[in-house]
Amino acid sequence: MSSIPKEQMAQVIEADGVMTYKKIPVPTPGPEQLLIHILYSGVCHTDLHALNNDWPLPRKTPLVGGHEGAGTIVALGSLVPTSQFTIGDAVGIQWLNSTCHHCTFCMQGKEYLCPEAQLSGYTVDGTFQQYAVAHAAHVARFPKGTKLDDAAPILCAGLTVYKGLKTSEARPGQSIAIVGAGGGLGSLAIQYAKAMGLHVIAIDGGNEKGESCKKLGAETYVDFMKSKDLVAEVKAASGSKRMGPHAVLLLAPAEKPFQQATDYVRSNGTVVCIGLPAGARVSMPVFDTVVRMIQVKGSYVGSRQDMFEAADFFVRGLVSAPIRTVGLSEIGGVFDAMRENRVVGRYVLDTSR
Amino acid sequence: MSSIPKEQMAQVIEADGVMTYKKIPVPTPGPEQLLIHILYSGVCHTDLHALNNDWPLPRKTPLVGGHEGAGTIVALGSLVPTSQFTIGDAVGIQWLNSTCHHCTFCMQGKEYLCPEAQLSGYTVDGTFQQYAVAHAAHVARFPKGTKLDDAAPILCAGLTVYKGLKTSEARPGQSIAIVGAGGGLGSLAIQYAKAMGLHVIAIDGGNEKGESCKKLGAETYVDFMKSKDLVAEVKAASGSKRMGPHAVLLLAPAEKPFQQATDYVRSNGTVVCIGLPAGARVSMPVFDTVVRMIQVKGSYVGSRQDMFEAADFFVRGLVSAPIRTVGLSEIGGVFDAMRENRVVGRYVLDTSR
Amino acid sequence: MSSIPKEQMAQVIEADGVMTYKKIPVPTPGPEQLLIHILYSGVCHTDLHALNNDWPLPRKTPLVGGHEGAGTIVALGSLVPTSQFTIGDAVGIQWLNSTCHHCTFCMQGKEYLCPEAQLSGYTVDGTFQQYAVAHAAHVARFPKGTKLDDAAPILCAGLTVYKGLKTSEARPGQSIAIVGAGGGLGSLAIQYAKAMGLHVIAIDGGNEKGESCKKLGAETYVDFMKSKDLVAEVKAASGSKRMGPHAVLLLAPAEKPFQQATDYVRSNGTVVCIGLPAGARVSMPVFDTVVRMIQVKGSYVGSRQDMFEAADFFVRGLVSAPIRTVGLSEIGGVFDAMRENRVVGRYVLDTSR
Amino acid sequence: MSSIPKEQMAQVIEADGVMTYKKIPVPTPGPEQLLIHILYSGVCHTDLHALNNDWPLPRKTPLVGGHEGAGTIVALGSLVPTSQFTIGDAVGIQWLNSTCHHCTFCMQGKEYLCPEAQLSGYTVDGTFQQYAVAHAAHVARFPKGTKLDDAAPILCAGLTVYKGLKTSEARPGQSIAIVGAGGGLGSLAIQYAKAMGLHVIAIDGGNEKGESCKKLGAETYVDFMKSKDLVAEVKAASGSKRMGPHAVLLLAPAEKPFQQATDYVRSNGTVVCIGLPAGARVSMPVFDTVVRMIQVKGSYVGSRQDMFEAADFFVRGLVSAPIRTVGLSEIGGVFDAMRENRVVGRYVLDTSR
Repeated sequence: MSSIPKEQMAQVIEADGVMTYKKIPVPTPGPEQLLIHILYSGVCHTDLHALNNDWPLPRKTPLVGGHEGAGTIVALGSLVPTSQFTIGDAVGIQWLNSTCHHCTFCMQGKEYLCPEAQLSGYTVDGTFQQYAVAHAAHVARFPKGTKLDDAAPILCAGLTVYKGLKTSEARPGQSIAIVGAGGGLGSLAIQYAKAMGLHVIAIDGGNEKGESCKKLGAETYVDFMKSKDLVAEVKAASGSKRMGPHAVLLLAPAEKPFQQATDYVRSNGTVVCIGLPAGARVSMPVFDTVVRMIQVKGSYVGSRQDMFEAADFFVRGLVSAPIRTVGLSEIGGVFDAMRENRVVGRYVLDTSR
Repeated sequence: MSSIPKEQMAQVIEADGVMTYKKIPVPTPGPEQLLIHILYSGVCHTDLHALNNDWPLPRKTPLVGGHEGAGTIVALGSLVPTSQFTIGDAVGIQWLNSTCHHCTFCMQGKEYLCPEAQLSGYTVDGTFQQYAVAHAAHVARFPKGTKLDDAAPILCAGLTVYKGLKTSEARPGQSIAIVGAGGGLGSLAIQYAKAMGLHVIAIDGGNEKGESCKKLGAETYVDFMKSKDLVAEVKAASGSKRMGPHAVLLLAPAEKPFQQATDYVRSNGTVVCIGLPAGARVSMPVFDTVVRMIQVKGSYVGSRQDMFEAADFFVRGLVSAPIRTVGLSEIGGVFDAMRENRVVGRYVLDTSR
Repeated sequence: MSSIPKEQMAQVIEADGVMTYKKIPVPTPGPEQLLIHILYSGVCHTDLHALNNDWPLPRKTPLVGGHEGAGTIVALGSLVPTSQFTIGDAVGIQWLNSTCHHCTFCMQGKEYLCPEAQLSGYTVDGTFQQYAVAHAAHVARFPKGTKLDDAAPILCAGLTVYKGLKTSEARPGQSIAIVGAGGGLGSLAIQYAKAMGLHVIAIDGGNEKGESCKKLGAETYVDFMKSKDLVAEVKAASGSKRMGPHAVLLLAPAEKPFQQATDYVRSNGTVVCIGLPAGARVSMPVFDTVVRMIQVKGSYVGSRQDMFEAADFFVRGLVSAPIRTVGLSEIGGVFDAMRENRVVGRYVLDTSR
Repeated sequence: MSSIPKEQMAQVIEADGVMTYKKIPVPTPGPEQLLIHILYSGVCHTDLHALNNDWPLPRKTPLVGGHEGAGTIVALGSLVPTSQFTIGDAVGIQWLNSTCHHCTFCMQGKEYLCPEAQLSGYTVDGTFQQYAVAHAAHVARFPKGTKLDDAAPILCAGLTVYKGLKTSEARPGQSIAIVGAGGGLGSLAIQYAKAMGLHVIAIDGGNEKGESCKKLGAETYVDFMKSKDLVAEVKAASGSKRMGPHAVLLLAPAEKPFQQATDYVRSNGTVVCIGLPAGARVSMPVFDTVVRMIQVKGSYVGSRQDMFEAADFFVRGLVSAPIRTVGLSEIGGVFDAMRENRVVGRYVLDTSR
């Protein structure tokens, strides 16, 4: 184990919209926490929301953002069980930094609903720094030798879509439509869905995304930019009886698909909402919802167990995020690309530069 | 067994809005059907929609309405197994008169979603007559000695709320809010919920309904006509932590509660839509739906197995609908009362007068 | 809050079979623990096994036994959240004293399967003393004013049968046979089952037990001492079609019922094993198990959430254990009664005498 | 459509152990039946039991055996819906020839438990003939162009293992041990399990079987003939924590694995019994079953919906049975091979010779 420095480089939000790359102290882990040397950190749309402070959720200031941080343990809090954690272990920091462990949701392994949850890079400092602390109970574990730059996007993007697929209750052999299949979340969702034995109908816009979706495992691609009747096309893609897919995963950051999904989902099927278009509402006709017995469910992030499972698919080589690595100092350019909607794949920050 | 007459009295819809009490032939059962001597038939709001022909669903004309008919078997089709059915058995005709038995929904015991379902008193003649036919596979069974006037409302109202409660996935010991608890469906829903070990928060308007709800087993009554903050009151009624009820059953024929239920349901809870306010939409904010992982589900009618279960609660004396019996010839007055919203309990028609 | 003494009275197992009532130091809570003033402690068969050290599970020596301890918080460890726990709160210590919070079972809210679980009155000191420590995350909570002597048996006996009923997957309106219904666990199981909307077939021996079972809510009583064909009788009690109960709960400390339950359980039904007759095996014919698609499940203790739920039934007055209170100093007599199989209801120890 | 002959060739069991290849009349379909020109019929161990009449289940005599028959529809009964079935459709006859459609199991889509089920090639004539009748509701459907010789084994072997995998409740990403993985059922089970996202630990004896298992998709092979500690090896194969597989599928026709599976299955895991070794019992220690909360379930055949799903995996090319085709007249040799335990893969009979 290398010695832990006193200071480190970090990207710090000092006011809404203002982020500075600067030297700050390395934090000290509390008794139940780990100190983790962050090597790579993925960048998520949520990080841009945190910078802009444009969500209904109160944010800490000043703040070190980031919640997809992969690295190695460099120090253990006094109460962290050494039977479970060792200096040098490869771990990841996720959106849920800690939860209360006492509420009804924590007790049921649904800690993502804990009202006292602390959120990495939002209510507590996150992973856009070289050394970060996290509650030991909430870090993801990776086996020795894992490529940590590839692992970073699994910590939020991978987990989120994996949990969404579980929430859909779609079983192996059934079909699922993924709306926004060509984006960062979508690329992972196609791969997870395929590895889970599902048949994927990818929905997105443009030829390039179509090719990418098919390469990743989608059986059909429906291009909403070209389609004259998207509902009919999705139903046609769902099989000879045109009953519609068993489930729909809504990843797109736009409101329209939220209104449309109940039109093509199979009777008794499930629409899972994941994407968070600003101010959007889900809406569907009561009559159709009732007589076709449709279900609409929200899916947020996963539990620690979900993280373990999502990571296992990655470790076994069944899913991989297309990443592009830049230095931590270069995050401004990543946010620019996000604002201009020209991000392809997932950006990962190398904290060493 | 008495001999079967050639003619009988029936209420016949001869054009939209026009119903005549007249003599018509007694139908002949097909090979898989039963001929049933209808003794009592409940009257449902759906019957008024059938008369007015104001639903998106195509209706038969001329039509004998009615789908809550209780009576006794007087003849068996040639293929009906005599090991299962005997002349004189007490049975009920329900909304689902027959289904295809071949589609994926029928094969899964979800025949209420069968695209070829025939609907009593809607696409085929129903129970506002003295003798009606029904597919043997779809009649409800009652033990000898059952009071058939009391049984009639179980065939649709009882089944519908029982299925809704199952769909809610609320477990014994959990809490459920019933919106429209003071009405006909609501009265039954409270009793079923109680018999299923649930804690009921009744929501409706007015003192009279409040008293009735509590008498039937509701633990709390929230009066939307008096409440200054309905969401807060429902949450308060759900326990000391004010997390909201585990599930919500929407029975009210109004749109507002459909928008509001997601505000007070517990995180990860389920909102079940049953009532069918004309043209209404369910709508909820995406953000809240996602981060609180809420589910919204439609529930229509039940399967044959659901009917068997719903009837069993009735047969055991755990639920009873407050009924008011009038003659089949007097149905016009029942519809008038419905139009003027002054129906208390469930009207049941005695077909002998 | 009264001051905490330095010493207290306890029943201490000093060697296998040797228990001494003596003065010992009051323990000090660790950072995540509570110090609880035990007022009442139930006595369970497991306590006799601990004394005799006749289980395959290694036991601590010297040991303070007991794992059904109800009392009030008198001190909080340094890391216990004061938002969750306050001096004076009514709490209970259960069999699971602490678990690792890191393994896959803990992460899923199935901490009863944690391989590092510490067990009250078995691997760590339990509740046969006036002051005991417990991990804050694992204590049961009771509202102010709860009668703690009545509450004590809920902490193990109540929890165990409640969990077994959940494990049975029997739904409200279905039937369950409870084998050993007249005993301490059985008495609680009948009440929980009834409150959960199940129809109870009680199985045990003797008239007195039969009367008690019926008084507690069983619909039928089958007396194995008198029955000439127990399988036929249980089937007959399950309804007019004699298909057998949907589930069976095996609470009896004898092997025979474990062999017999699969004979009368309904096809596709569930047999839940709870009782632990020494050295017994569950055994059933493969042919019947397969063609009738029967399931046999073990059910051990419950999770923290299960405890919360089981306690809620008690707090609402839906279940109550018949208790008999004696002094902590008198435990020897309780064990004698157990050995002689003449315990009626549950013994609860008053630690003040 | 070719004209239907009056007579046909069939293999007829005329007494226990006596089967004759002879000319018999072509049967006439009842009103709800189809007449099917059987082109290929798989041979199952059950057929040998039928010939020997050595099962506890009463068998018809004389009997045409066989229940894996693939062919085309040549005539429809008078009540078969022409919207669903057309002359020339490719269909399959399975073990369940018809069920009552009225009992609680039929109503729930669990018709494999129907007490009035008729069994192809057992209680009614089966598929070892050129023309067979089957209840329309119970035939499997194949798309035009399906290779019917390949399809035949899916009708029983495929369905059985698919249903077993569903019954195991193992989710994508979890591990399953398949005992008897090298046999006919096992070969299909490995492929289904893989297509369902499961990680397969194959258990069988011998190098040849091991190679075959790995080729079909098993991740590990445990050879019970070489293993010194099978339990330890299976656990080791289940992951770095050696917790054991999440589920076990018992296909082997021997009793020992039924006793052993509960030793290596993961805590809270599921052991599914499918194979039917004569007179065998499942047996496990109560203590372990309870404290590790293990479940043991029987799985028989599938429902019509299960058949549809199982066939869909085949139609999509995800599973295929290694078949060996001989003439219907040559069935005696197949039974000889079975008796001598030298069947590799699945024998399929060509009814044209």
